[in-house]
Amino acid sequence: MSEAPLVPGKVAEHTICLLVKLGQVAFRLAEEGIGETGLRVRHYSVLQALADNGAMPQLALGSFLRIDPATMVTSLDDLERAGYAERTRDPQDRRRYAVDITDEGRKVLDDLNRRLVALDGDILTDLDSTERQSLHALLGSLAESPSLTALFDSVRERTGAKGA
Amino acid sequence: MSEAPLVPGKVAEHTICLLVKLGQVAFRLAEEGIGETGLRVRHYSVLQALADNGAMPQLALGSFLRIDPATMVTSLDDLERAGYAERTRDPQDRRRYAVDITDEGRKVLDDLNRRLVALDGDILTDLDSTERQSLHALLGSLAESPSLTALFDSVRERTGAKGA
Repeated sequence: MSEAPLVPGKVAEHTICLLVKLGQVAFRLAEEGIGETGLRVRHYSVLQALADNGAMPQLALGSFLRIDPATMVTSLDDLERAGYAERTRDPQDRRRYAVDITDEGRKVLDDLNRRLVALDGDILTDLDSTERQSLHALLGSLAESPSLTALFDSVRERTGAKGA
Repeated sequence: MSEAPLVPGKVAEHTICLLVKLGQVAFRLAEEGIGETGLRVRHYSVLQALADNGAMPQLALGSFLRIDPATMVTSLDDLERAGYAERTRDPQDRRRYAVDITDEGRKVLDDLNRRLVALDGDILTDLDSTERQSLHALLGSLAESPSLTALFDSVRERTGAKGA
C-alpha cells in the first residue's frame, strides 16, 4: 500500500502520462471486475462489436478493433470454445470466415455490460455527476479524434500491430 | 489502417473502456516518442520521482511509483548502466540502498520532459484549449482520487503487484 497518488509529482503535468497510468489502472480493474465470467476486456470488445454490427469477416473484425491477427485468432478460439461466438463461412466470399455472436454470447454480453457499468461507478466515486459527464465526453472526443487515430495507426504500421 | 474510431460502438459507453483503450494508445505513442533516448516510460517515472523528491531508498521508490520490485531492479540497472542514476548506501540504514539521479540523468530528464510536452500537443491536436485544460484537470482529479487509489491498491495486493 502506497500513500502516493497514482501519478505522483511532475509526471502528472503531462496529460499523456495521466492517460498511460490511469489506463493501466483501468485495465487492471476491468480485467479483475469481469474475470468471474472467464472473459477478458478483449473478449468483451469482440462480442460488443458483433452485437453492434452483426456478423463480420474475421479480418474486418480485427481491423475494426485494431487487434492483431494472432490475438484475434486466440480470442475467437476462446469465445468459440465457451459457446459465445461462432465462425461460419463468409457468405460474401466462401473462402473466408465470418464471425457471429451466439444467443449465449448475448447473455454473457449483458452480464459484461452490467459489470462495466458498476465498474464505472467504482472508479469514478470521487467525481461528481458533472465531472463524470465531462470526463466521459472529453475521452469520447479523444477516442474519435482523427489526428490521434491517424497518429496511432501510423505508429502501429511502422512498429508492428502487436500489443496495440 | 482502420476507419473505425479508437473505441468503436457501445464499448465507448463505458468510461473505463475509454480509459483502457486511450491508455494503451497513449502508452504506445509515449514509448515511441521517447524511444530515441533509449529510455521507456517507466524510466522517466523513476528519474522524475528522484528529481522531485531527492534520493530515495530503493524500496520506498518502488512503493511510491507502484512499480513491483523485480521491474524496479531492472529499471534501476538500466538507468545506472546509462549513467542516469546511481545506487548508494542509504544513510539512514547502511544495509539498504538509496537511489539518486546524476547530472547526466537531469539532462536526459529535461529532454524527456520536452518530448512529453510535444507528445501532449500531438495527441490533443483535435481538442481546443479549454477542452485540453478540462481533460487534464479531470484526469488529475482521478489520479488523486482516494477511492480509486484504495481500490487499485487492494486489487494489486490481492492479485500480486506485477504488471501494474
